[in-house]
Amino acid sequence: MKERSRAQAVKVVRLEGAAAPAEAADEVAVEEPLEIQVEGQSIAVVMRTPGHDRELAAGFALTEGIVSDRTEIFEITSCLTTAQSAKNVINLALRNPGRFDRAKLSRNVFSSSSCGVCGKATIEAVRQQFPAISSAPAIRVKVLCALPEKLAEAQETFQRTGGLHACALFDLQGRLLLLREDVGRHNALDKLIGHELLEDELPLAERILLLSGRVSFEMTQKALAAGLGIIAAISAPSSLAVEFARANNQTLIGFLRGQRMNLYAGAERVIR
Amino acid sequence: MKERSRAQAVKVVRLEGAAAPAEAADEVAVEEPLEIQVEGQSIAVVMRTPGHDRELAAGFALTEGIVSDRTEIFEITSCLTTAQSAKNVINLALRNPGRFDRAKLSRNVFSSSSCGVCGKATIEAVRQQFPAISSAPAIRVKVLCALPEKLAEAQETFQRTGGLHACALFDLQGRLLLLREDVGRHNALDKLIGHELLEDELPLAERILLLSGRVSFEMTQKALAAGLGIIAAISAPSSLAVEFARANNQTLIGFLRGQRMNLYAGAERVIR
Repeated sequence: MKERSRAQAVKVVRLEGAAAPAEAADEVAVEEPLEIQVEGQSIAVVMRTPGHDRELAAGFALTEGIVSDRTEIFEITSCLTTAQSAKNVINLALRNPGRFDRAKLSRNVFSSSSCGVCGKATIEAVRQQFPAISSAPAIRVKVLCALPEKLAEAQETFQRTGGLHACALFDLQGRLLLLREDVGRHNALDKLIGHELLEDELPLAERILLLSGRVSFEMTQKALAAGLGIIAAISAPSSLAVEFARANNQTLIGFLRGQRMNLYAGAERVIR
Repeated sequence: MKERSRAQAVKVVRLEGAAAPAEAADEVAVEEPLEIQVEGQSIAVVMRTPGHDRELAAGFALTEGIVSDRTEIFEITSCLTTAQSAKNVINLALRNPGRFDRAKLSRNVFSSSSCGVCGKATIEAVRQQFPAISSAPAIRVKVLCALPEKLAEAQETFQRTGGLHACALFDLQGRLLLLREDVGRHNALDKLIGHELLEDELPLAERILLLSGRVSFEMTQKALAAGLGIIAAISAPSSLAVEFARANNQTLIGFLRGQRMNLYAGAERVIR
């Protein structure tokens, strides 16, 4: 099977210093769901970059304790569609199917917020049904450029350990309202959203979310659950994050560093 | 409740250039399992940094579609032990318990390799039972210091998108044997291990694993499943990764950059 591309071309609006906004071609890492089955039974859906899916299924089976040896694997068959749709399924057949006890697995294995969406048993269930953003305010470039430094100042633990992801909530004037850190970036975002939920502050229509790292599909979906229309990140978004943000009328800003940034979705709301 | 610390002190051996190895105090991000229950039923175990656990449970419930509003939450109660053991449980009681359908959730929600261990329904099930490393070879400092540059050279997609995690396998002379990249770092490692499993190369006793990012507990456990005794990373390990590596006789190297590195476990195997 031909290796599928791990990078996907997207059009972005690039802002840099005082220069005029420029449309540019960018590439983002491809993110797609893969349903892993054992003996035809769904055991996990992982959000992964396509390619080496047989290896992924084999490695997953080993590291999850489903097999302990290559000889226990009879065959790995994939059924990939050509379209870039959520229809990727791979099945692992065992030499001794009778020894596989899915009930034991499903009793012990559930979803997690540090993996997020990946824990859905059927690909159809990957997307939650949250309403798209109906209207979002404009944000000034100057406000955006000042956010990363404010985050860094506030992120004491990160500076000590280098091991924590951060999510921060700002108002439209760029004032830091809330910061949460965690070894898992989905946890950090759930903590931030949970705080606002418990304080009865949802939906977060007039807020900017800043992420210390990368943006996966799941991060954009969690943001949408809280009504967040503006997501900025220090690092790169995935292909599915860009697609999701565009489909749900969110503004998605990546590589926010110094005086530059890439606008992947909702660029019209970023004003100078 | 008093905020628990997000950073934990660990002793490391610091190597830098030609200087003699020095014992030093370092801090790592705390990683611990939290079992999230709804109406007393376990729905997920997440690997998280302690603190703001009520918010984490509330945010998880919102972003997973279990509640859509603050008023649907009746109460959040936690039962934290004082010891740093895996006994953290938080329970979310609903205003209308009858509307919660765990069967619907557990049908749709499973584990994932991009979250790894977090998907276990009971904390007791967090640890897989893989044998500890019985013996591992020595590695030269010079070999280790050369690995990150070799990884960067090989990581073409990363340089294009900035969005992929990488895992690389080296022999003891520092020759790159295999590289896998993915939006999810657990996927990248599963792909690498899966390749070696299918090629009948396990256990990987004479190999060095290099990770482009941070090291969680789950990454050390996956490495152990493949018999990997030497794990090096460009970034930081978590508290539980350090503890796991020490308990299982693995050598764990963090912040491998230029001529310096921190040795978190198995320092005696790193020779000059």
